[in-house]
Amino acid sequence: MLFRQLFDAQTSTYTYLIADESTKEAVLVDPVIEQVERDYKLIKELGLNLYYCIETHIHADHITAAYKLRKLTGCLGVVPAKAKVTCADIRIEEGDNLGVGGVNIEVISTPGHTSCHMAYLVGEDRVLTGDALFIRGCGRTDFQYGDIVTLYDSVMQNLFILPDTTLVYPAHDYRGHTVSTIGEEKQFNPRLTGHTREEFITLMNNIDKRNPKKIMEAVIANEFTG
Amino acid sequence: MLFRQLFDAQTSTYTYLIADESTKEAVLVDPVIEQVERDYKLIKELGLNLYYCIETHIHADHITAAYKLRKLTGCLGVVPAKAKVTCADIRIEEGDNLGVGGVNIEVISTPGHTSCHMAYLVGEDRVLTGDALFIRGCGRTDFQYGDIVTLYDSVMQNLFILPDTTLVYPAHDYRGHTVSTIGEEKQFNPRLTGHTREEFITLMNNIDKRNPKKIMEAVIANEFTG
Repeated sequence: MLFRQLFDAQTSTYTYLIADESTKEAVLVDPVIEQVERDYKLIKELGLNLYYCIETHIHADHITAAYKLRKLTGCLGVVPAKAKVTCADIRIEEGDNLGVGGVNIEVISTPGHTSCHMAYLVGEDRVLTGDALFIRGCGRTDFQYGDIVTLYDSVMQNLFILPDTTLVYPAHDYRGHTVSTIGEEKQFNPRLTGHTREEFITLMNNIDKRNPKKIMEAVIANEFTG
Repeated sequence: MLFRQLFDAQTSTYTYLIADESTKEAVLVDPVIEQVERDYKLIKELGLNLYYCIETHIHADHITAAYKLRKLTGCLGVVPAKAKVTCADIRIEEGDNLGVGGVNIEVISTPGHTSCHMAYLVGEDRVLTGDALFIRGCGRTDFQYGDIVTLYDSVMQNLFILPDTTLVYPAHDYRGHTVSTIGEEKQFNPRLTGHTREEFITLMNNIDKRNPKKIMEAVIANEFTG
């Protein structure tokens, strides 16, 4: 399996390119519109065929490159089933498998940051956690039908049940971390470790709630896959 | 083996934390002074004992965290043998092995960016290329006794002879790439692929040569291990 983590410095967003190296079938998770040239160039250099452009959720901090990549490559745009998105090609639900070639990508429902956020288990030992779980943090819950208790339950019941050695690849990092593990986040996540639901509610109600700079343009554009 | 890539956004520098997960012995390659708290926290959380703080070369764009980490952890500061550095603990030469526990870290001499730059082969399938080889690029050669022909020969003779599948982890990236392979760089590196020594000289003589912002303070500080 080819697994590439790509970073957009302006929005601190991670995009993931995943492919079966023998069949050359590939998917891109959470691509950023400003990086479409970089990502398309890499896909061509590696001789990959892009099958899916997959979103973990409707982003409020950057515009997806899905629309442009669908035009360039003919790939299919994939969004969570209930996402308020026009013109997506595939709508996925918990338990669906978006695998390409010999690579399994299993859909894990993880609402809370937004109402229909999904995480993706890639193979057996990596999980793309989107904005549900960050390295030593988690996403916000104060817009796009986010909900604090729902996020807490998603992380505890759907992510923290994975094996401790599972590698955690988030959709953002603001401190220069690239990867963590479920075991580490269970032990050292300042928002989640050792906190009851009630403590998590208090904590999340007191975080900085200034809007992301691009929220107005990003949400609207992402509802049309970019 | 634990292998963590860490990023300093201000200088686009990658630091690498490598450890034997059973013996807990660890090394840090090219740490950045502004990130010392982050890195020290991670080392403590993971229960690691830091044995070495290793430099690929004397950096002109950031100050190493070696001095601070030696104070905090008692680790040894490791620099290339001929580097003009006062107070390093270990001076390494081509072919030395800096392994910890069951993890081999083999020293590969790769001068050219600076006169005594080293790359590190970690295990059998990852190479930390420092500023000798970037993803689709390479380091500059116009200060600290850098030399264009020497860099060309280092890459061609000491890095491009590694197996094509070897993962390339550079000391910097400015476009959001995190990893490449030797095979990819042999095929797609715009500075090196298909260029003769003479073409490489012309190309390197024509790149932007404005000094890195921190060059004055960084080089001097790094000569005292930060």
